[in-house]
Amino acid sequence: MSDVPARVVLREVGPRDGLQNEPPVPTAQKIALIEALAQTGVGEIEAVSYTHPRAIPQMADAADVWAGVTRDPSISYSALVPNLVGARRALDAGFADIEVVVSASRTHNLRNINRAPEESMEAIAEVIATAHAHDVRCQVIVATAFGCPYEGEVPEEQVVGLAERAVAFGADSICFGDTTGMGSPPRVTRLVGRFRDACPDVALALHFHDTRGTGMANLAAGLALGVDRFDASVGGLGGCPYAPGASGNIATEEAVYLLQEYGVETGIDLDRLLEVAEFAQRIVGHELPSGLLKAGPRTRLAR
Amino acid sequence: MSDVPARVVLREVGPRDGLQNEPPVPTAQKIALIEALAQTGVGEIEAVSYTHPRAIPQMADAADVWAGVTRDPSISYSALVPNLVGARRALDAGFADIEVVVSASRTHNLRNINRAPEESMEAIAEVIATAHAHDVRCQVIVATAFGCPYEGEVPEEQVVGLAERAVAFGADSICFGDTTGMGSPPRVTRLVGRFRDACPDVALALHFHDTRGTGMANLAAGLALGVDRFDASVGGLGGCPYAPGASGNIATEEAVYLLQEYGVETGIDLDRLLEVAEFAQRIVGHELPSGLLKAGPRTRLAR
Repeated sequence: MSDVPARVVLREVGPRDGLQNEPPVPTAQKIALIEALAQTGVGEIEAVSYTHPRAIPQMADAADVWAGVTRDPSISYSALVPNLVGARRALDAGFADIEVVVSASRTHNLRNINRAPEESMEAIAEVIATAHAHDVRCQVIVATAFGCPYEGEVPEEQVVGLAERAVAFGADSICFGDTTGMGSPPRVTRLVGRFRDACPDVALALHFHDTRGTGMANLAAGLALGVDRFDASVGGLGGCPYAPGASGNIATEEAVYLLQEYGVETGIDLDRLLEVAEFAQRIVGHELPSGLLKAGPRTRLAR
Repeated sequence: MSDVPARVVLREVGPRDGLQNEPPVPTAQKIALIEALAQTGVGEIEAVSYTHPRAIPQMADAADVWAGVTRDPSISYSALVPNLVGARRALDAGFADIEVVVSASRTHNLRNINRAPEESMEAIAEVIATAHAHDVRCQVIVATAFGCPYEGEVPEEQVVGLAERAVAFGADSICFGDTTGMGSPPRVTRLVGRFRDACPDVALALHFHDTRGTGMANLAAGLALGVDRFDASVGGLGGCPYAPGASGNIATEEAVYLLQEYGVETGIDLDRLLEVAEFAQRIVGHELPSGLLKAGPRTRLAR
């Protein structure tokens, strides 16, 4: 456990990756969720995505959401962008951090955005250059990094190869996305090891889904390797588009709880976060998958 | 990962620890569940507990369940016993393996069986002696080994102290029970380390609950230390008596899946086990918490 970092940055992706996989929620509720999350001590919030409304109707009101949020200057808000058009919208809206995605699985990328991964990479080069021209940081998320719902196995060299190209184009950081929860600790260890060999000085974030019960084990595996940036979604908000009823993102409160058990600082107030998870549950109108939301932390004793 | 064992024995505890925490199920369904589990390749099944019907009405038909099961000679079936009376019933019924429990938390032991842990240990010494007089193996489960719902923290020396006394009384193996899912990887590492220091040659099993999302991470932590015996419940059958709606035991299929990812052999056919998990879900008449049951293994691809 010697590489476990003293501090971890959790990026809250509930308002984007979470709500994107839930039935549409009113704009005011999205704003309220983002503002409530800002009160928990979380340092980064992925607030919206500037995707085409036909592709993801849940994010059609991104501009209104972002315009409505009372921003906390201590928090880094970010926007996910699918392409240069989306990036320009995010830059115009004043985001200082954007994320752009490419899927390591050819089939997944083709089905999602009708492009081969290498075509996506050309567009990503433009997105990064445009972001940097505006003094905006750009993270490249390599999706299906631990497996693809269509192809199954995605070779690690393919995943790391895309990450290396993104770094060559100037990506400020890389995030490996376990888009459909196919990761496991041995895969995390192998992929992080390969990436570090290829790009030893590049900031790395890991984005896990808990679709098959491995979410916290994957986080623990990343942590043991010194990874200090993880995505998570309050309450486990969201789901898996390929498996009805299945879980999506790891729950932020479960991540905070696990990190506390390691003595790792996140800056997040767990009690406040659990209140926001309850609020998120009311917003979507159904039970969220977070176990910690039901049972409470170990400090919540029975009478 | 050098200590990861090549093979792990999973003990299926769904028929006992699972069903004990579900609304009562007809005897015939319990028998059918045990017989279906026997078809999956699992090597050990905790079939029943011989507790007093007033204490645990769900197990009142233990004798009928066990009498009705067509037994597979390749499987080790076991019974949980609360005391010498229960042990005699299990021995009379022909069990070759029994488990007896003591809670490391004084409050939990008092509330559960109205005895202090040291009084329980005296009874356990008798149970072990009686079992051995009948050539029956006896495992001692130290419950609330990672925390107590009443007391919170349970000192590791208290947990290991009970285990050492059990070993001195002749216990064939020790199981640390995370009764209400308060374990985490650092706690697993510390407790297993302390136990190994105290009792280096004694077989150790770990019994995790996934109440707070840490179940698979705890399994991975135990695995990394070379622990090769874990309890699990098909479908995640069961719950937590201290947190309504919360999960109980880790799901056997999630454990098998995770172990497969490590290349660890369990002898269990995952597809068959998932069918039994669906059957278990029908028996109890509500959705079980297993994520793998909803999403399927990573080999189950989308069209």
